[in-house]
Amino acid sequence: MASNTLFLLPGDGIGTEIMAEVEKLITHLNASGATDFAYDKGLVGGCAYDAHGAAISEADMEKALAADAVIFGAVGGPKWDAVPYEVRPEAGLLRLRKDLGLFANLRPAICYAALADASSLKKELVEGLDILIVRELTGGVYFGEPKEITDLGNGQKRAVDTQVYESYEIDRIARVAFDLAMTRGKKVHSADKKNVMKSGVLWDEVVKQAAKDYPEIALTHILADNAAMQLVRNPKQFDVMVTDNLFGDILSDAAAMLTGSLGMLPSASLGAPDPETGKRKALYEPVHGSAPDIAGQGVANPIAMFASFAMALRYSFGLVDLATRLETAISDVLEDGLRTGDIMQTGCRKVGTSEMGDAIIAKL
Amino acid sequence: MASNTLFLLPGDGIGTEIMAEVEKLITHLNASGATDFAYDKGLVGGCAYDAHGAAISEADMEKALAADAVIFGAVGGPKWDAVPYEVRPEAGLLRLRKDLGLFANLRPAICYAALADASSLKKELVEGLDILIVRELTGGVYFGEPKEITDLGNGQKRAVDTQVYESYEIDRIARVAFDLAMTRGKKVHSADKKNVMKSGVLWDEVVKQAAKDYPEIALTHILADNAAMQLVRNPKQFDVMVTDNLFGDILSDAAAMLTGSLGMLPSASLGAPDPETGKRKALYEPVHGSAPDIAGQGVANPIAMFASFAMALRYSFGLVDLATRLETAISDVLEDGLRTGDIMQTGCRKVGTSEMGDAIIAKL
Ligand SMILES: CC(C)[C@H](C(=O)O)[C@@H](O)C(=O)O
Ligand SMILES: CC(C)[C@H](C(=O)O)[C@@H](O)C(=O)O
Repeated sequence: MASNTLFLLPGDGIGTEIMAEVEKLITHLNASGATDFAYDKGLVGGCAYDAHGAAISEADMEKALAADAVIFGAVGGPKWDAVPYEVRPEAGLLRLRKDLGLFANLRPAICYAALADASSLKKELVEGLDILIVRELTGGVYFGEPKEITDLGNGQKRAVDTQVYESYEIDRIARVAFDLAMTRGKKVHSADKKNVMKSGVLWDEVVKQAAKDYPEIALTHILADNAAMQLVRNPKQFDVMVTDNLFGDILSDAAAMLTGSLGMLPSASLGAPDPETGKRKALYEPVHGSAPDIAGQGVANPIAMFASFAMALRYSFGLVDLATRLETAISDVLEDGLRTGDIMQTGCRKVGTSEMGDAIIAKL
Repeated sequence: MASNTLFLLPGDGIGTEIMAEVEKLITHLNASGATDFAYDKGLVGGCAYDAHGAAISEADMEKALAADAVIFGAVGGPKWDAVPYEVRPEAGLLRLRKDLGLFANLRPAICYAALADASSLKKELVEGLDILIVRELTGGVYFGEPKEITDLGNGQKRAVDTQVYESYEIDRIARVAFDLAMTRGKKVHSADKKNVMKSGVLWDEVVKQAAKDYPEIALTHILADNAAMQLVRNPKQFDVMVTDNLFGDILSDAAAMLTGSLGMLPSASLGAPDPETGKRKALYEPVHGSAPDIAGQGVANPIAMFASFAMALRYSFGLVDLATRLETAISDVLEDGLRTGDIMQTGCRKVGTSEMGDAIIAKL
């Protein structure tokens, strides 16, 4: 079996602790013969800034570009609140997304059966919930130029961000959403603000055009503000939702929180297939952040990180069965009543990061 | 008493039905001597387009500019889905906001005690909820230029929207939020995406600067995506939230839906005080839309429209006691078990638009 390469970027805060569990997992999988991963590690975010004044070094960018998949922890923390905008922790993540061309961000919002009670929503509204938010990740207001603050004198400044989308950017993300919906419920909601934004008008036009190649898909347009409402009101009406970078940021976070399983949710960011090899560049990261308040205590929940690794097995290495086994191991451990502090429930057994990691690996 | 002038813009769909109740209310208040309102009516949205090809006519714009307060119903419907972008129904509302300089949009998200069960959230999380979202309404991506779609040839187009904020725009909305918070819980969350947007960086800088004049206010910065999550997780942590036009659009809708009282929620849009008279231009509108699916059936819920009128009494006419009496009348009617179809609960009595309006007026 050809060796597959992973590049691990633990980042800041609890990122290092949950990535340590991934290393245990890789070691286990390699030892069992299920995989043959070679991996390297780098710095991103605040720790990279501390080490060399940038949110990611050129050397680590090269390793990320060369790897079959990047496994990313989390970045940021109060320590770096005052660093210059260009080198803030998030800049490392944004550069990875942009330079690796990771335009398709897949954010499943699923409700683990064992955790349906933990949602702030009534149980019957979230039990069995399984939404996939497909967020455009390399365009829109995140990267459009001009993006600047101008001093106007008199103590006045003017700040500008630019939302830009070209047809091809919308078309390719729409097709990712449609392809994924074909493997699921064949229902896609496309969210924009076409009643206010020209990019929304184009978004809707291109999505509807692309949909013509997917006659089996039921496509529904929804305004982004209404999408936020409907997610709160009745999330199970959704199957796949495709939306732009900024709306996707907000709507996917709202959707994740609905499940009551935020510390549990993974994400995958994929590039276009290479025309020769068919391979996609990819980065996998948990939806949660670096949680500086609990960092270093060994109490962080590694499940979202493991679930992200499962997405890597599925999308980057075609190891679909192994991915499913890992996901099942996660559910099983939850059914057994093991909980990290963030998801603790009465009658369950509270465990730390490492014990949770071990328990999941033992189930495999 | 000098006569006060109102300009009523019922708009489309259920807008006309709920505005008819406002007319009854005005007649009652005038007859009782509590007020001395003179009012005129105009067209906005799809009906204005049908009548004269624009989402609002110049004549009606002039009346809106001259009135002490504009009372607005709702606009839009499938009938006008294909009209040109410049004259779509929403354009009338956006022009009113812009030309009247209504930069401060106040969106209370309160949970009516009688309706706490209707929320999709667990009752204990929303009972007694009282959030005020203060949304900037005349800037940001709604109005920034360039805002255009360019044909690039080869079937490719490029769409651009521009998010622009100048310091003074942020400063004045922050002060509105702080002033209102001083009359409430003195807690303000300011939401932006300063980790990605330069307008967010400026937003945060100016809000923090303005806060120096309000030493009693507890100001907390929150990223807009996290705000969406926290609204879902534990809305009662919020008192006042100040945010920009686009985030405000989405977050206020999510917050409104949390209460289970969406058909009940009002909003006020205020301009700057006139330097000579101290008067602010103002528009009051329900948060819900034109609900074309139930229009013309006499079943729409007039409560959000009445609650918006209460805000007009309070903010435009200083009739604070009367505003409170109207709000109490609304709660009382709900406690009595009267419900329109949208909020119907077992054991309650289902009534139509007109009966609900009469019942509230009778309570005054
Ligand atoms: C960290 C930040 C730049 C990022 C984003 O806004 O995209 C995060 O919120 C996310 O959703 O992955
Ligand atoms: C109708 C539409 C233009 C409007 C907006 O986006 O501001 C509406 O959603 C609102 O929140 O008042």
